[in-house]
Amino acid sequence: MTDRSERVLAVDIGGTKIAFAEVAGAKLENRRQIPTPRSGGDALVEAIAAEVRGARPSRLAVATTGIVSDGGTLTALNPRTLPIENGYPLASRLQASIGVRPLVVNDAQAAAWGEYAFGAGQGSRNFMFVTVSTGIGGGLVLAGRLQSGQAGLAGHVGHMSVSGADAPCGCGRRGCLETVASGTAIAARFGERVGRTVTAKDVFAEAAAGNAEAEVMLEDAAAALAETFANLVAATDLDRIALGGGVGLASGVLDRVLRHADSLPAAFRRQIVQARAGADAGLIGVADLAMKKNFII
Amino acid sequence: MTDRSERVLAVDIGGTKIAFAEVAGAKLENRRQIPTPRSGGDALVEAIAAEVRGARPSRLAVATTGIVSDGGTLTALNPRTLPIENGYPLASRLQASIGVRPLVVNDAQAAAWGEYAFGAGQGSRNFMFVTVSTGIGGGLVLAGRLQSGQAGLAGHVGHMSVSGADAPCGCGRRGCLETVASGTAIAARFGERVGRTVTAKDVFAEAAAGNAEAEVMLEDAAAALAETFANLVAATDLDRIALGGGVGLASGVLDRVLRHADSLPAAFRRQIVQARAGADAGLIGVADLAMKKNFII
Repeated sequence: MTDRSERVLAVDIGGTKIAFAEVAGAKLENRRQIPTPRSGGDALVEAIAAEVRGARPSRLAVATTGIVSDGGTLTALNPRTLPIENGYPLASRLQASIGVRPLVVNDAQAAAWGEYAFGAGQGSRNFMFVTVSTGIGGGLVLAGRLQSGQAGLAGHVGHMSVSGADAPCGCGRRGCLETVASGTAIAARFGERVGRTVTAKDVFAEAAAGNAEAEVMLEDAAAALAETFANLVAATDLDRIALGGGVGLASGVLDRVLRHADSLPAAFRRQIVQARAGADAGLIGVADLAMKKNFII
Repeated sequence: MTDRSERVLAVDIGGTKIAFAEVAGAKLENRRQIPTPRSGGDALVEAIAAEVRGARPSRLAVATTGIVSDGGTLTALNPRTLPIENGYPLASRLQASIGVRPLVVNDAQAAAWGEYAFGAGQGSRNFMFVTVSTGIGGGLVLAGRLQSGQAGLAGHVGHMSVSGADAPCGCGRRGCLETVASGTAIAARFGERVGRTVTAKDVFAEAAAGNAEAEVMLEDAAAALAETFANLVAATDLDRIALGGGVGLASGVLDRVLRHADSLPAAFRRQIVQARAGADAGLIGVADLAMKKNFII
């Protein structure tokens, strides 16, 4: 049994639900979730406080969608995901309400740490976790240190540009990886070609049934992912990349990415593997980070 | 006066010349250079040893073109720059010959550290130095740590792909930043359009004289640099980028890059400045690194 004092109460704030669990190592206990209040920061804090107060946690760790900067202020990169005031002081408001200073970390960065510490990143030194689902997020661990950055932007690899892409992105740039390889993009691009509204799942089903247009969409997405990974290998010398998320883990996606990566010059080829820590990687990762000192850079 | 024991004998191995200097802080003494032997690793070691032996350095620091991995083996990324055996054990051969274990670091990484410690990177936290000359090199300092990577590839931002580019690159990829924005690329692309052989300097002169084709070449280069910088801001949350090298410091280049960067969404806009540590940034940087413990990651 793990000593109670080594447990962390971890919270994961998503666009539709907030998950809670007591975490020790990679083990979750008493996992539960509530719907995310979508009326601003104070409502968010109130909902979390109501759930947490009874538990009287000694350590509180919060992973959240959005950009976390300056030690705990939150800004939406895409307000449709989570409507919140710009620069909302999440950490200090939670502290005022609950009485414990929380660690607040971006959710993809937290999940990257979860994969690094307990999942597909173990044994790696320069590691990236990329989650491909509705959007594309990620986190980098370089030389054993999670990269956050002062502005909290580190790991936002979905907003790196890829060649051959030019569609406007929600972030304000054009031709981002997310405009080609996210589930939303795969569905929208195929939908445009066939003139009807489809889901990413539909595109996978069509490709499996031999639809050449659907096949092209999935190949474009895989090529864009492989290109981005190679760009990041050149810049940061990653030795391993773990691909997660609903689309990233979908049947055949890793194989497609690997085929594109195999055609790279040897200097840029690295391990690309499936993520292993699961949907609660963010809870596990942020809890582990909260157990450390000077964990984050 | 600086204590003699705090000095480092620094060596910078380039494709055409090897520079030597005794370095204390950012101060160089007794700087001299010899032509680079281009007949393999042993000839290189012999030439350095002949120059260094008399000096009996207590610390030896070597910056070199090429990829440095595993603590001191050297491999050419482009053998035309420096012909050397793959994985040549430079550090151990220098140690055997001179009697001092040298620190060996890639030259652009060393220059990045020189800029960070003594030049345009001072006060920055997530910093990138990019040198644009014949080719494009660079180095990243994240949270105060120079990124090298186990394979030594970190900072090779010239080999990240940019949108709209598709020319084959010497590294084996296509559409690298280097194929658009290096001095070689600027000259070659303009030369193709006008049907004669020109230098990068010629293209700058033509653009200054109002040649619209030359103007396009320089704008393409600046746009590609700004795009790459924004991609790296998304991935690593750089707060400052310093542009150096013969082309990077050429008149008007920084202004062009800044114009392109100004049109980015605010989240991706960061300081872009001129490098300040000069052509000996590599000597200064590698010497400073050699004074530290656990300096490199």
